[in-house]
Amino acid sequence: MKRPGALTDLIQELKRLPGIGQKTAERLSFFIMRGEKLRAEKLSAAVMAVKEKIVLCSECHGITERNPCDICTDEKRDRGLVCVVEEPYDVYVLENVGEFKGVYHVLMGVISPLDGIGPAELTLDGLKARVDTGNVREIIVATNPDLEGESTATYIARLLKGSGVKLSRIARGVPVGGDIEYADTVTLQKALEGRTEITP
Amino acid sequence: MKRPGALTDLIQELKRLPGIGQKTAERLSFFIMRGEKLRAEKLSAAVMAVKEKIVLCSECHGITERNPCDICTDEKRDRGLVCVVEEPYDVYVLENVGEFKGVYHVLMGVISPLDGIGPAELTLDGLKARVDTGNVREIIVATNPDLEGESTATYIARLLKGSGVKLSRIARGVPVGGDIEYADTVTLQKALEGRTEITP
Repeated sequence: MKRPGALTDLIQELKRLPGIGQKTAERLSFFIMRGEKLRAEKLSAAVMAVKEKIVLCSECHGITERNPCDICTDEKRDRGLVCVVEEPYDVYVLENVGEFKGVYHVLMGVISPLDGIGPAELTLDGLKARVDTGNVREIIVATNPDLEGESTATYIARLLKGSGVKLSRIARGVPVGGDIEYADTVTLQKALEGRTEITP
Repeated sequence: MKRPGALTDLIQELKRLPGIGQKTAERLSFFIMRGEKLRAEKLSAAVMAVKEKIVLCSECHGITERNPCDICTDEKRDRGLVCVVEEPYDVYVLENVGEFKGVYHVLMGVISPLDGIGPAELTLDGLKARVDTGNVREIIVATNPDLEGESTATYIARLLKGSGVKLSRIARGVPVGGDIEYADTVTLQKALEGRTEITP
């Protein structure tokens, strides 16, 4: 027996989303189908709106509805301090912490030869250009603590060598609330290397 | 810092879906935002299509794009044998098995006094009416094997008492591939009660 075409279509589209398999797509589709029409309309419109309204900031490549973005135009933020991240989403994760008062630079990915992504595919030219203006004092590289993220950090270090900019990498160590027993060797090694003095 | 409004809207709408929390909604929203425009258009259209094109079959209350549905109009199916299920989704689960050759009756829920759902909220009148036509020979009650599903099965048994229709309940027992060690007491009790003879 055939499912109604409209339902099959929705299941297929939902399955393209990350982490959504056949079962979840079916459950969500039935939920949307049985729910209020207003909710479906809102969801449908919201999906289109993120594609139509959101653009990338020409300065930091973060996402925004107006260009340049709120962070890049905020007079209270320190433009001499730039945090380099892989994805636009990372900006929000860091902003949620509320600690960082500088600006961002989104690489739009990470160097990954296996996926065919080289330095030219990223916004490294833009980063270099920002540094070349002479307005950047310090760069914090907050790429992921994995192989690609570390390679990219090293690449950036070489790219900006001799520019006089202070370059740092976010600390890698045991996560707070975690258990040393379950930490892997490399993490423990980084945690030992990056040990900080306990002041009495 | 504020997220762009369009993104916040999409996250809010996705969070209304079952099993989708803040983190998942954020991840999905960023994925949709960064994906191809065609995909967002297709998803957006598919969401609306399930609301606009899909209707409930006036016969069985299952979902369909034309009324009555493909199952109810299929000449090869046994209309004397009706399988009663809680939700339209259950029809697809059973159809995937491919074993059942009768027709369905979707209750559109289950008797649940705590949720304020009594027999009047379900399609029990319709079921009674179908039985009263005299065309139904046998009814298999395939409501969920939980408290509400069992109560509803008992209610149906009382409702159709004296109608001469053969009434059965799907077997409850240890799931195939499961382990007796992990089966709960009630399931084991049902499995023992419903034991079948082994023919040599």
